[in-house]
Amino acid sequence: MQNPACKTGECFFHRTTIFILFLSVSSTFSLFSQSKATDEDAFFIRHIHDAALTQGQCYPWLHHLTKEIGARLSGSPQAAAAVEYGKQTLGTLGLDSVWLQPVMVPHWVRGEKEVVRIAASAMGSVELNALALGNSVGTSKNGIAAQVVEVQNFDDLKNLGSAIEGKIVFFNRPFDATQINTFAAYGGAVNQRGNGPSEAAKYGAVAVLVRSMASNLDDIPHTGGLRYKEGVEKIPAVAISTNDAELLSGLLKQGAVKVFIKTSCRMLEDKLSYNVIGEIRGSEKPEEIILVGGHLDSWDVGEGAHDDGAGVVQSMEVLHLLKKMDYRPKRTIRCVLFMNEENGLRGGREYGKEAERKGEFHLAAIESDRGGFTPRGFTVTGDKEVFAAKFPLLRPWLDLLEPYGLRIKKGGGGADISPLKKQKTLLFGFEPDPQRYFNYHHTNADVFETVDKRELELGAAAITSLVFLIDKHGLEKEGKGGSH
Amino acid sequence: MQNPACKTGECFFHRTTIFILFLSVSSTFSLFSQSKATDEDAFFIRHIHDAALTQGQCYPWLHHLTKEIGARLSGSPQAAAAVEYGKQTLGTLGLDSVWLQPVMVPHWVRGEKEVVRIAASAMGSVELNALALGNSVGTSKNGIAAQVVEVQNFDDLKNLGSAIEGKIVFFNRPFDATQINTFAAYGGAVNQRGNGPSEAAKYGAVAVLVRSMASNLDDIPHTGGLRYKEGVEKIPAVAISTNDAELLSGLLKQGAVKVFIKTSCRMLEDKLSYNVIGEIRGSEKPEEIILVGGHLDSWDVGEGAHDDGAGVVQSMEVLHLLKKMDYRPKRTIRCVLFMNEENGLRGGREYGKEAERKGEFHLAAIESDRGGFTPRGFTVTGDKEVFAAKFPLLRPWLDLLEPYGLRIKKGGGGADISPLKKQKTLLFGFEPDPQRYFNYHHTNADVFETVDKRELELGAAAITSLVFLIDKHGLEKEGKGGSH
Repeated sequence: MQNPACKTGECFFHRTTIFILFLSVSSTFSLFSQSKATDEDAFFIRHIHDAALTQGQCYPWLHHLTKEIGARLSGSPQAAAAVEYGKQTLGTLGLDSVWLQPVMVPHWVRGEKEVVRIAASAMGSVELNALALGNSVGTSKNGIAAQVVEVQNFDDLKNLGSAIEGKIVFFNRPFDATQINTFAAYGGAVNQRGNGPSEAAKYGAVAVLVRSMASNLDDIPHTGGLRYKEGVEKIPAVAISTNDAELLSGLLKQGAVKVFIKTSCRMLEDKLSYNVIGEIRGSEKPEEIILVGGHLDSWDVGEGAHDDGAGVVQSMEVLHLLKKMDYRPKRTIRCVLFMNEENGLRGGREYGKEAERKGEFHLAAIESDRGGFTPRGFTVTGDKEVFAAKFPLLRPWLDLLEPYGLRIKKGGGGADISPLKKQKTLLFGFEPDPQRYFNYHHTNADVFETVDKRELELGAAAITSLVFLIDKHGLEKEGKGGSH
Repeated sequence: MQNPACKTGECFFHRTTIFILFLSVSSTFSLFSQSKATDEDAFFIRHIHDAALTQGQCYPWLHHLTKEIGARLSGSPQAAAAVEYGKQTLGTLGLDSVWLQPVMVPHWVRGEKEVVRIAASAMGSVELNALALGNSVGTSKNGIAAQVVEVQNFDDLKNLGSAIEGKIVFFNRPFDATQINTFAAYGGAVNQRGNGPSEAAKYGAVAVLVRSMASNLDDIPHTGGLRYKEGVEKIPAVAISTNDAELLSGLLKQGAVKVFIKTSCRMLEDKLSYNVIGEIRGSEKPEEIILVGGHLDSWDVGEGAHDDGAGVVQSMEVLHLLKKMDYRPKRTIRCVLFMNEENGLRGGREYGKEAERKGEFHLAAIESDRGGFTPRGFTVTGDKEVFAAKFPLLRPWLDLLEPYGLRIKKGGGGADISPLKKQKTLLFGFEPDPQRYFNYHHTNADVFETVDKRELELGAAAITSLVFLIDKHGLEKEGKGGSH
């Protein structure tokens, strides 16, 4: 492209003009506090974005978390290093307090590199790109070799019945490409990974292969957690790349296929770890907490850059930016870096329980755990009554967020903050652009280089803007608790 | 992340539910044609997206254009191959006609790899990552060595005056990082590249270094066109990477810096090339043309994947999808693959002139030339009166586009379609997410791998949806020309 004036919707949108506009609007309407408040809000949100894009620290923080520490599965030395790094970093921000909240976490280890091989087929023998699923038991030292049965869903298992006995079940239902939001496609496929192993074991399967939970076709396997059902035999389960799933499915159409699987993953004893917490205490209503968080742990492959290094550094950035701008919050702004979101949610659960024990009240909680892509806005949920009462109060903020391409709509909050639902907290999920997330999710490809600096910073600015609006205006109908 | 239900705003948004909703809404309101039309529109737009995401061809087409053909600067053999490929591909779509429109284009060649070196400085000698600017003259065989003067803008040139004589001027004004839209930041910096060389030459500069037009800091130089002013001496100009610009600026703070530049780029004779055009003739109002286009040429580095391979394949995809869905347009839908957007705009100008000669009327034109990222919507412009009359007619379409994250707002159309402004065409610029565009723009890094399949396909679906709405409803007030 050549002529920028023909290409941008904002080339006539100059910072100076806007500044002058604010001044003139606020002097014209200076007697109307409502309008004035809105102009001040717009000005402060602009200021947040300026600070994030020019003085943000989240990108170098992410570099450290991914390149110096790397993958940080619960119980690993890297997870411990991430706790220490989170604590030290929050410690540099001049907060009112920074502390660790102990939590016992599962300690699963992958062991040696998985061997997954088509042992006999129309094509002969083929090595597959595979990763054991998190929490999976390993095979025996000799591995497992058995014939493969392909299924799309649990109904197929029922229909096949005893034909499954002694076989390896291959779950091969792909993402629905027509879902505009890839998280909806993930939601429509992930029961194969989470519950597939136990469902197949009920019918006597000896192991499970799962098509990777991915939006794209490539050679990269995606790990992720499985949940064994109590009382059902625990059988080994591995994910294979989407290309390999296509290959295997093609071979099965030509005749019987035998696969060999050898894994040495296993679950060890629970280990002590921590949620990392830091806060700025509110000056007027310190008992009303606004939480912002992400999760420190990741899977043991790649660098956990989008999942959820991005959410961790954005959450710390919120406090950093507010301090940088000398903003004194009315309410308590708390950053929580949760441990063990990936394979247990122990950190989120412990945090919820502790809040209950202490009688803490969380007015709102915002989780960033959908990657570090360009922000599109927030989804919001909560207890039915809370949602019905408070969602409409967010409407006036939409105009303030629109210049940054941000929307607020009904939808999920986040796994770590979900235990707060019962204390009538309004739960927000930060929503970045979702298109590329499941190309990287839970893989060796989830590395620092896939995160764009501006996109990450804009996300931090979006979350900070929402925290600011909640802090300033509260979540009560006018006159019912807003500070004056 | 673990629990998808907590994470997506659309996990409760099932295709089946929507389908049932349409059926029930359309039976409830079947007597009200207005509502019914909207439901049909929503349904068709959903259908367009399904087709793009499951049967789209734009991604393999882009693979061919970038990997088989590669960079395709006007006048190069690759540009000729791209013309042939565009014609052949359009030829497979069952269109009513496909033709080539001849146009003479500039033929600039880079010559040997540039040498740009800090020859003397506090740090000694350092090679810089550089690319000659497009259309630039080369240096003599011996190169140019001179002291460097850093400036931020043309006022600085005026203030320095005769101090510039015999020097190399270094334009080093960076992008304004606080611009949310990177195209606005580009617009605020690009006069250094476009006009800087002639402005500096007026004061006796012997050559120009320009900080690359980039959002990020890295080692990749960005080329791009310069325009020499008539009557001013043509001096050589090169872009250096943003990291090298920072380095050079730092060294200049420590004392005098001498730089050596050697380039062998030059402008050859104009060459015959072509715009590639294909169309589906309208069944009711064939004389009203809706144009969709991108530009076939690129710079001579990288693969021209985002700029503008994406726009080319998306424009062809519009016709492909409409044919695939057996859509019979009322109006003529024309795909134009323009030649020479990058260093002359000859294709766009010739197309405009030819349209005038033939007395053709373009109701609307949509250009895709801002990369193949996730679609955010469209910017729209036009002759003042046309815009004032027609922009409000787009409002009812916003609700139809919103589920796909698409907005329509005032802003630029596109360089190639800009000559149509005078024939009262409403000009649309497709607007994808802009954050990463200027990491790749005009560089060796603008390659196929940086384009995501879903993002590209969603862009094609967005443009097809807009073409459909314009075709179906026209751009006249109700009852004033809409077809019945």
